[in-house]
Amino acid sequence: MATTLGHHKLGHNQYGKAETRVVRVFRDSDVHELVDYNVSVALSGDFADTHLTGDNSLVLTTDAVKNTVNAYAKEAGEAVRDPESFGIALARHFVDDIPQVDRASVLLEAYPWDRLHHAGTPHPHAFSRRGAYTRTATVTAETDRVWVVSGIADLVVLKTTDSEFHSFYEDAYTTLAPTTDRIMATQVTAQWHHTDAGPGAGWGASFEEVHRVLTDTFAGHHSLALQQTLYAIGEAVLDAQPGIGEIRFSLPNKHHFLVDLAPFGLKNPGEVFHAADRPYGLIEATVRRDGTPDPGPAFDPGLGW
Amino acid sequence: MATTLGHHKLGHNQYGKAETRVVRVFRDSDVHELVDYNVSVALSGDFADTHLTGDNSLVLTTDAVKNTVNAYAKEAGEAVRDPESFGIALARHFVDDIPQVDRASVLLEAYPWDRLHHAGTPHPHAFSRRGAYTRTATVTAETDRVWVVSGIADLVVLKTTDSEFHSFYEDAYTTLAPTTDRIMATQVTAQWHHTDAGPGAGWGASFEEVHRVLTDTFAGHHSLALQQTLYAIGEAVLDAQPGIGEIRFSLPNKHHFLVDLAPFGLKNPGEVFHAADRPYGLIEATVRRDGTPDPGPAFDPGLGW
Amino acid sequence: MATTLGHHKLGHNQYGKAETRVVRVFRDSDVHELVDYNVSVALSGDFADTHLTGDNSLVLTTDAVKNTVNAYAKEAGEAVRDPESFGIALARHFVDDIPQVDRASVLLEAYPWDRLHHAGTPHPHAFSRRGAYTRTATVTAETDRVWVVSGIADLVVLKTTDSEFHSFYEDAYTTLAPTTDRIMATQVTAQWHHTDAGPGAGWGASFEEVHRVLTDTFAGHHSLALQQTLYAIGEAVLDAQPGIGEIRFSLPNKHHFLVDLAPFGLKNPGEVFHAADRPYGLIEATVRRDGTPDPGPAFDPGLGW
Amino acid sequence: MATTLGHHKLGHNQYGKAETRVVRVFRDSDVHELVDYNVSVALSGDFADTHLTGDNSLVLTTDAVKNTVNAYAKEAGEAVRDPESFGIALARHFVDDIPQVDRASVLLEAYPWDRLHHAGTPHPHAFSRRGAYTRTATVTAETDRVWVVSGIADLVVLKTTDSEFHSFYEDAYTTLAPTTDRIMATQVTAQWHHTDAGPGAGWGASFEEVHRVLTDTFAGHHSLALQQTLYAIGEAVLDAQPGIGEIRFSLPNKHHFLVDLAPFGLKNPGEVFHAADRPYGLIEATVRRDGTPDPGPAFDPGLGW
Repeated sequence: MATTLGHHKLGHNQYGKAETRVVRVFRDSDVHELVDYNVSVALSGDFADTHLTGDNSLVLTTDAVKNTVNAYAKEAGEAVRDPESFGIALARHFVDDIPQVDRASVLLEAYPWDRLHHAGTPHPHAFSRRGAYTRTATVTAETDRVWVVSGIADLVVLKTTDSEFHSFYEDAYTTLAPTTDRIMATQVTAQWHHTDAGPGAGWGASFEEVHRVLTDTFAGHHSLALQQTLYAIGEAVLDAQPGIGEIRFSLPNKHHFLVDLAPFGLKNPGEVFHAADRPYGLIEATVRRDGTPDPGPAFDPGLGW
Repeated sequence: MATTLGHHKLGHNQYGKAETRVVRVFRDSDVHELVDYNVSVALSGDFADTHLTGDNSLVLTTDAVKNTVNAYAKEAGEAVRDPESFGIALARHFVDDIPQVDRASVLLEAYPWDRLHHAGTPHPHAFSRRGAYTRTATVTAETDRVWVVSGIADLVVLKTTDSEFHSFYEDAYTTLAPTTDRIMATQVTAQWHHTDAGPGAGWGASFEEVHRVLTDTFAGHHSLALQQTLYAIGEAVLDAQPGIGEIRFSLPNKHHFLVDLAPFGLKNPGEVFHAADRPYGLIEATVRRDGTPDPGPAFDPGLGW
Repeated sequence: MATTLGHHKLGHNQYGKAETRVVRVFRDSDVHELVDYNVSVALSGDFADTHLTGDNSLVLTTDAVKNTVNAYAKEAGEAVRDPESFGIALARHFVDDIPQVDRASVLLEAYPWDRLHHAGTPHPHAFSRRGAYTRTATVTAETDRVWVVSGIADLVVLKTTDSEFHSFYEDAYTTLAPTTDRIMATQVTAQWHHTDAGPGAGWGASFEEVHRVLTDTFAGHHSLALQQTLYAIGEAVLDAQPGIGEIRFSLPNKHHFLVDLAPFGLKNPGEVFHAADRPYGLIEATVRRDGTPDPGPAFDPGLGW
Repeated sequence: MATTLGHHKLGHNQYGKAETRVVRVFRDSDVHELVDYNVSVALSGDFADTHLTGDNSLVLTTDAVKNTVNAYAKEAGEAVRDPESFGIALARHFVDDIPQVDRASVLLEAYPWDRLHHAGTPHPHAFSRRGAYTRTATVTAETDRVWVVSGIADLVVLKTTDSEFHSFYEDAYTTLAPTTDRIMATQVTAQWHHTDAGPGAGWGASFEEVHRVLTDTFAGHHSLALQQTLYAIGEAVLDAQPGIGEIRFSLPNKHHFLVDLAPFGLKNPGEVFHAADRPYGLIEATVRRDGTPDPGPAFDPGLGW
């Protein structure tokens, strides 16, 4: 689809509005609810002219993209309640209603809020931001297809024992001491592809189950390597939901180094650790269901970098 | 206390090690617990010579300060469990055991963790980071005094109604429309000074009560201004704990602007909001108990900037 | 000035609009110039009622404060070209024109831009952001006084030799090896108080000279401690500009640790270093001119934390 | 290459050490030089067992990866001076010397430093961090191939005029006013693939020329859309260096909105702007040389998300 002006070619291109911060309040009853999104939209299609000649006649402005996100926070009705369904409504709109758009992808970060209590009971309209993680969705639509990926980010988990790391390969640069008992901690980024049209139990229930299975498996797994724990979590998630075709993980190994207290005459039997920032191990892998279709652009609707 | 070399003078000075990230695991039983701190120490005293001539003979190295923080995470025993008591142990050590130190201040950020569940029950050694807020403490010690300030940071709270803002002063630059129903949201930073030696119920229980009173009051308060809500929270906290002399707040007004959907033929009765980043209102105030002593250096043991 | 409602008191309080991001283009000729500011304003005065009762009749809205910053970017004319003079214009306005304001403080961050070149010559209206540092100003005004503090932030400097650190105090927690040759690096935050009405050579020229003297002294100083280098820079700045009463520094010691390459059969004579993030030494001190007046609220117009 | 344990499969996977912060000083003469890198390494190959069974016998520890980066900062000699050649040395080592590694990718961020002056002359060993941009390289190696991508990040450029945006497509959500004179600003992230073994003039000279051509073209281009400016820069870069096969851009449109000063009786003829943070337009595109080979994994050696 490269397009030429003079001697060079325009390759893949996409554009849109990134990070529209929209909050939707549901005040149908005295008990309010809210969703809080950061929405990024990328469009591709017949947009060569603006690059080659500055002809913008087919360019939907990114300002209009922002307006659409805000308007759909009202118009899309109940679909706004989950990032997946909100993303589907938006992505379908751009592909269906803007003729020059061939593909639309919508990335959503959802910040969960917890209801506050007042005088011992849940309060109808006061909340605090959960902070423990971000829920994500990536929705990609073409004329006759839609891909939905759900995810979680910024979830930091740690186990104080039940983690070993030893019997590894040793080259000339290997100095690490093997261990049969260490802290294992990671900040989970995971994304999973729904091969079905959507979970029957609803997007929210599906997410909550994945979150539960993920943390439950992390807690219960006796780990010989972060890679092994990753795979165990992936298997458990696929086992829990047949509609998930594959799950991808990016797991930084948040190293906790045992501090040497011997110079101060102290023993340190797994009690005092330095929480290091950089460098960190980074473990990335996909766990796939046997026979699941190729996810196509589902995980990476962009330029690939 | 300025000291001269040639024609200029050394004014206030302090130094130390900032941001030692220490995690302490309590594994006395099969059910582990952990505390997770970011500890910054500042020392002042007889340190003019290193500035004036490079004579370091009285300089405790900041590396030793770091070592001390790590060692005390073991040596200080049960005091490590709360940031206030850990800070007291550290600050007292520097003043009592290093002769040239006149004043030591210790700033601690504590990141709370929640216990994970596995197979439906709390797991003995797996955790996830809470993320909803950071608990803080600032401890300042001199030879015969210690000041303890507790705090909370990064707590984001929001109410979808019960907030008005109108009848304000108008100058030539005022264009804001008054409102009787808006979203009010803020990211709470609060610090409170304990005039007693410490809360009888324990530092942890004291913090939990302040957190509860703060969020409870925020939820229940019908607000005419963020300033009024601030004061109401301050009063409630002082009422709850007689050992707290004063509480200081820094409350950014996290503006949520109602989006104008009229151009798209849509009504927006308090449903769709833009969550703005900058600029933001910033409300800062102190609520004090009548007759409480001056907090001295309790809140700001440093250079003041 | 505490004010009571019921049994508690309102202590110090201030409010305003933080982080208004205003860019002013000067296009008086074909050669454009621009200034790029982040402006935060804090006001204090007769604002007890909004805290105590929600009576906002004296509250200048923070939205109007933002509007004023934007309008003054036009109205203040040539004063907009330097953060100090822009800050003075704004601070004077709030104190002089809003009766209930007793004190106004304005904090400005200025991001410098460099002119781009095209076809070998400076371009009249294209720029790139310098990035090497931020220029700052803090202006505080009362009815009959104004304090002006200039500053620099985020300036990272490093010397690969001419830095020693040894002969220091040793306690039971000291394990650091002394060195006669190390990397010394810091990220400079410095602020200096002008006791005169303003530098005769202009705010911009004054800033440029301080930047030159600061980096020149850092480069040329043979250091026995970061504290000694700090003091040498402070003396040089005070020597260069008689209108500066004192200068305050906050210097993180950005540690560069020599990597032990011996396990790999390699020598490392001061060549390969690990640039550490945390923890870091933090050195803070003031260098004052003999007999200079007390700076009052000049450096810290706020709550002190 | 999926590998099965039970009923699911391990898909693509890679691991390594991210963000090793290594500084190399060249002190061969009295005039020192330094390079400052953030190095991330990802390896893929025969690593299924650690995922499936926790068998680490083929796992090179990420700690050894870090050690290798540090050791090569010495061992790689002159290759360390440029991120591309340092990356090639590292990537080749992992593929050639660790049998189970099939592919290695090395991502480098290089922070440029400028030499300070002292007493009017360049100083032999004092520096300040440039800050204006980061130089990047991505090197991917397989047994018989290596791909080299150079790049720049965090370069913020702005033009105060010579930018129009109008005659765009209008849908029901379009409210943007067309303009023939606006500020255009962006933070450039660009990466370009070298189809040759490397630039004859050296990696450093090649980078400097791309930086010059990029900023020169941005300055001189009369823009009808950021997309058009992007393409013009891409063409100019490809014209300047025949060894570059394609260049990819990610350009956030850093919106500067003209402030409406009319309510205050002021005109604003392109002088006062609000520099917005979010949301922002995001323009991404590739400009390719006609007939250039497919870059394969050159730009995205990872999981693709």
